[in-house]
Amino acid sequence: MLEGFFNPRSVAIVGASREEGKTGHSIISNIVKYGFPGKIYPVNPKASEIMGLTSYPNLLSIEGDIDLAVIVIPPKFILDAIDECAKKGIKSVIIISAGFKETGGEGRRLETEVANKARGYGIRLLGPNCLGLIDTGSMLNASFAAGMPPKGKIAFFSQSGALCTAILDWAVGNNVGFSKFISLGNKADLSELELIRYLADDPETSVILGYLEGVEKGREFMDEARKAARKKPLIVVKAGGTAAGARAASSHTGTLAGADRAFQAAFDQSGIIRAMSIEDLFDYALSFAGQPLPSGPRLAIITNAGGPGIIAADACERFRVELAELSGDTINKLRESLPPVAGFFNPVDVIGDARADRYEAAVNTVLSDPNVNGALVILTPQAMTEVEKTADIVANASRSGKPLIASFMGEASIKGAVDILRKGGVPNYPYPERGVKSFASMVRYAQWLKEPEPVIGSFEADRKKVEEIIASARKEDRLELGEKEAREVIKAYGFRIPKAMMARTSEEAAIVARGIGFPVVMKISSPDILHKTEVGGVKVGLASEEEVEKAFLEITSNASRRMPKALIWGVSVQEMVKKGKEVIVGMSKDHNFGPLLMFGLGGIYVEVLKDVSFRVAPVGKIDIERMISEIRSYPLLKGVRGEAPSDIDALIEGIQRLSQLVTDFPEIIEMDINPLVVLPKGEGVIAIDARMTIE
Amino acid sequence: MLEGFFNPRSVAIVGASREEGKTGHSIISNIVKYGFPGKIYPVNPKASEIMGLTSYPNLLSIEGDIDLAVIVIPPKFILDAIDECAKKGIKSVIIISAGFKETGGEGRRLETEVANKARGYGIRLLGPNCLGLIDTGSMLNASFAAGMPPKGKIAFFSQSGALCTAILDWAVGNNVGFSKFISLGNKADLSELELIRYLADDPETSVILGYLEGVEKGREFMDEARKAARKKPLIVVKAGGTAAGARAASSHTGTLAGADRAFQAAFDQSGIIRAMSIEDLFDYALSFAGQPLPSGPRLAIITNAGGPGIIAADACERFRVELAELSGDTINKLRESLPPVAGFFNPVDVIGDARADRYEAAVNTVLSDPNVNGALVILTPQAMTEVEKTADIVANASRSGKPLIASFMGEASIKGAVDILRKGGVPNYPYPERGVKSFASMVRYAQWLKEPEPVIGSFEADRKKVEEIIASARKEDRLELGEKEAREVIKAYGFRIPKAMMARTSEEAAIVARGIGFPVVMKISSPDILHKTEVGGVKVGLASEEEVEKAFLEITSNASRRMPKALIWGVSVQEMVKKGKEVIVGMSKDHNFGPLLMFGLGGIYVEVLKDVSFRVAPVGKIDIERMISEIRSYPLLKGVRGEAPSDIDALIEGIQRLSQLVTDFPEIIEMDINPLVVLPKGEGVIAIDARMTIE
Repeated sequence: MLEGFFNPRSVAIVGASREEGKTGHSIISNIVKYGFPGKIYPVNPKASEIMGLTSYPNLLSIEGDIDLAVIVIPPKFILDAIDECAKKGIKSVIIISAGFKETGGEGRRLETEVANKARGYGIRLLGPNCLGLIDTGSMLNASFAAGMPPKGKIAFFSQSGALCTAILDWAVGNNVGFSKFISLGNKADLSELELIRYLADDPETSVILGYLEGVEKGREFMDEARKAARKKPLIVVKAGGTAAGARAASSHTGTLAGADRAFQAAFDQSGIIRAMSIEDLFDYALSFAGQPLPSGPRLAIITNAGGPGIIAADACERFRVELAELSGDTINKLRESLPPVAGFFNPVDVIGDARADRYEAAVNTVLSDPNVNGALVILTPQAMTEVEKTADIVANASRSGKPLIASFMGEASIKGAVDILRKGGVPNYPYPERGVKSFASMVRYAQWLKEPEPVIGSFEADRKKVEEIIASARKEDRLELGEKEAREVIKAYGFRIPKAMMARTSEEAAIVARGIGFPVVMKISSPDILHKTEVGGVKVGLASEEEVEKAFLEITSNASRRMPKALIWGVSVQEMVKKGKEVIVGMSKDHNFGPLLMFGLGGIYVEVLKDVSFRVAPVGKIDIERMISEIRSYPLLKGVRGEAPSDIDALIEGIQRLSQLVTDFPEIIEMDINPLVVLPKGEGVIAIDARMTIE
Repeated sequence: MLEGFFNPRSVAIVGASREEGKTGHSIISNIVKYGFPGKIYPVNPKASEIMGLTSYPNLLSIEGDIDLAVIVIPPKFILDAIDECAKKGIKSVIIISAGFKETGGEGRRLETEVANKARGYGIRLLGPNCLGLIDTGSMLNASFAAGMPPKGKIAFFSQSGALCTAILDWAVGNNVGFSKFISLGNKADLSELELIRYLADDPETSVILGYLEGVEKGREFMDEARKAARKKPLIVVKAGGTAAGARAASSHTGTLAGADRAFQAAFDQSGIIRAMSIEDLFDYALSFAGQPLPSGPRLAIITNAGGPGIIAADACERFRVELAELSGDTINKLRESLPPVAGFFNPVDVIGDARADRYEAAVNTVLSDPNVNGALVILTPQAMTEVEKTADIVANASRSGKPLIASFMGEASIKGAVDILRKGGVPNYPYPERGVKSFASMVRYAQWLKEPEPVIGSFEADRKKVEEIIASARKEDRLELGEKEAREVIKAYGFRIPKAMMARTSEEAAIVARGIGFPVVMKISSPDILHKTEVGGVKVGLASEEEVEKAFLEITSNASRRMPKALIWGVSVQEMVKKGKEVIVGMSKDHNFGPLLMFGLGGIYVEVLKDVSFRVAPVGKIDIERMISEIRSYPLLKGVRGEAPSDIDALIEGIQRLSQLVTDFPEIIEMDINPLVVLPKGEGVIAIDARMTIE
């Protein structure tokens, strides 16, 4: 679909200029200079020739077919230019020009108009307000960037044009190869969505990198990303939005959720490797581009210096990489080829006076150990060190099928070696920690690839009942559902709730309690009171009719004293649930990704320790398992100090049902089931209380 | 004291060699080549002249005085060489040669002998097994490293010689200035202790960097480090020891403590800035060396590109730096000098087409805002960008008295600018995150400098009583103190403990309980039973004589059923303490730093969430305050949901008393007070239970 952008047979530059320093000149000059082999048509009514090429007054005066138009003219002329493109049959257009959405008001309107017009003609747009694109395979540099990166397997798309410039400058300076560079600009039409889809199938790209500040269609993005990540690593830096969103939240979930939590969840579920900095992004990319994936987490370290070896071992612990335990066989072989003072265990220390032959023996021996899934070779330039010869050896050893990463430390004396390593596809990191961190990212990705595709379960549910409840609340203009309604909703989706009935007088309460069986719990019922405990609206363990009658009077008088304006429906008398672990599950609508599910242990774990985890609904079982186990207090669910384990299977099903509910009813914008009591294994879960807000 | 090493008037090289490639040649060649202005005496019985200098057969044949000897001969000749040094009156000796402690057995013995001999003569030793040292001020390169760094204000000492080599190579390649480079080697005599003391007063050094794998004398190290850190930043990478120590622990504190926890605590208490990687070490160093300290945490960001600005703002959140809120005045001034589409709030976006003048206006305006404590200037090389001119402006603005940090991104096009910045003392980071992280390290250090010196409190205590208890346990060869003994010990140090008495029969228990007052708690008393609850050895809330008698029988039969071999002293009947927050305070002896105190909330917070903090005893009040507040569950002590706050002052005093106890009695190697109940504010703390192990 995007072939017209990356492999055009002919390019027209609308707004090409003879004047150096102008963007319209940089573009045509880059196209010509970097050897684009197709037809190049400058369009400029005021010139007859630009850079030795015939210039045309407009697109229609060009005789041949045109695959791609690059537009560099002021915004006000662009609507006409799109008309011309359509008449000329051009299907792919890059708008470099700025002055659109980013300037607000008028610019935003114009951008929408341009996008609509293009859509009407079946034209795809990249930009506006972008740097353009570069394809090293087709030798097309349709950008105004200074420089062209070498050919390589890394593709980079970016929502920041300036970041493209800086990275390009870095790539040229360090000779790092790229397949494609795409500046997304304002994303009036093409966004990360189409780019990811295209790059996933691009044979010239083996690693996809992205810089994003936001996504347009969260769910589609996740689907597209997951498909791509199954084919090749997709590494993304997400910037912005660390500060929580502005919407006032009425639930715990709403309070704790935030844009960054949603992105993290979406990335986790889609197999996207999240880089937390630009440095990490490219560090990871170099490992993925040059090396095979490790089949396990066990790393061997080979070094000619103790200190950096220790630093690398520390980094293994920090980034959750295992230090491989070398086999007896390997250690014996190492003893044969290394001096007696060498270190034979991982990290393997070939000692400061090691020449290349010692590295060769160590690297090959270690890589052939089945306990080793990859190796990090550390070199410090010492008196006897054969820096470049060692680089040759490492570059050759890298064909073992296991990933090999280097950390040749220093600057002046290792320049040549780093070149040799790069040519051999071995990434070199100036410090061992960064090598270990990159290896860790490969380990994580390789593990994800082995996981089965998540299956979204489907449970029987009384959808009609929920529709009715929501309709009736809407009729009364209530956005916050009453407690009873919220309980009915989750009951309709298969949650077990305690026996309960509303009582309007203390006498009714006593009757109901006797019917349910003692002891009971009593709670104020009011659409206006969210935090029942705080107004003295809850009593537990009531064991007799007298206690129930007394509690009724206390609860209602507490509530009307503390919240005199609250509408009070009565007091709910409930079955007292036997002891289990109280958890909270909830949902809050995220701006980018829709329903964001939350899970945590109830009470202080959520409120004080904020020990919660998030996933985007709908969510598969495997993701829910991870969601549950990633909170710090997870051991409490599994059971500590000989305690019986909780019914985690039932909890998983509960979250699946919640996921189905909020997916079926996008009008629910926030909800908590709190507490959801997880009983001991085999006994299920019971939802004690719920609250819910609709749109 | 170390002047003989860094400013010698004359140097002898024992083992100087004519042969290139030999260490003895590299040393003399470095001393000559880099222009050491003093006298140079090669010593080599087989040569009459080396590098144009007269060579001597031995030290005694040299006529002039010698301040420093550098020894590069095989280990077996070194004892004689030390004798010669003594005869010649040499007080400072560097032993480069390897073959000592690092080779084990014989080498270790020889090293001790050499060190003892030197000590006897009053000779100070650097090494053995080291790279030597470099002083750019006295133009002395007494090392076998390849290259000499430019002059600068950073001093670096390292326990890894190879790391010195690599860093030196990096410094030469990147033109980074250093005052001194010291390779500590095996630390047979001089260690980080003397180096830190010397460098703290060295006028040519403004930042001290260190790489350490361990310290010899933990407490002295802390004292020396704190004194140095008051004078100039001391930044240290500590490598190794992330895996917990091997000693089997009998207390919670012992289980959770580890070498790395101890180092972290020691660094925190001493004002040492801990770098978690070599990259961070030098990143921080560049900021500290070139820029003044910020007077607060508020950073302004100036950028010509939105993306990197957002990345920097994200990093502020991550590294706990505040984004400065610009004053109305500043924003108005910015509106006057920047185009209307610019960003006037922090991050200030001067827009992609900014030339140097726009940067100049923005940087100066922002720096003069009193709400701003420092600024980060981001530049991406775009078409109109005046890269070097902007660097000039930033370098000049850096004289404002506020720290200024740069992130000029890219490689090829910014090389010249980075040079300009460096000359102006402005550190440049390839990615803005690293700039923000470095600013954060300055903020933290500046805050520490403002803190008062910690005062170690002293409380009245019955020291004699503790001596007696320990003596009696020792007499019986018991290393584990009994519960009663442990309680007596802490009582002697001022801990309030519940009324309690031992009962040997159920009748005695009833009598005691009546005397104490109901309800009571009962606990098995046995030197062999550590986890009382788990053997059914604890009953609480016993409200009558009958209940107490019954409990006595149950507890003793539970204990003898589950631990038939345990010696049972009886059952302790205790006052039931009213509700408070249960915390645990404890101590475990650390290999490097001695008594390491631990604090955490009791039960699952310690056991499951491992939410604990550590400090090295003796510890001042201010450090205890931080120790208490840094656990995640701290809000529970302050009181959540309208709960009364706990008596944190009493808790602080309790930890001070514990600190005094374990400092007075170094023979205590492990102890827990668990639980220590912290009552509501004003009501104090009560120690319920304690355990203690002595040496």
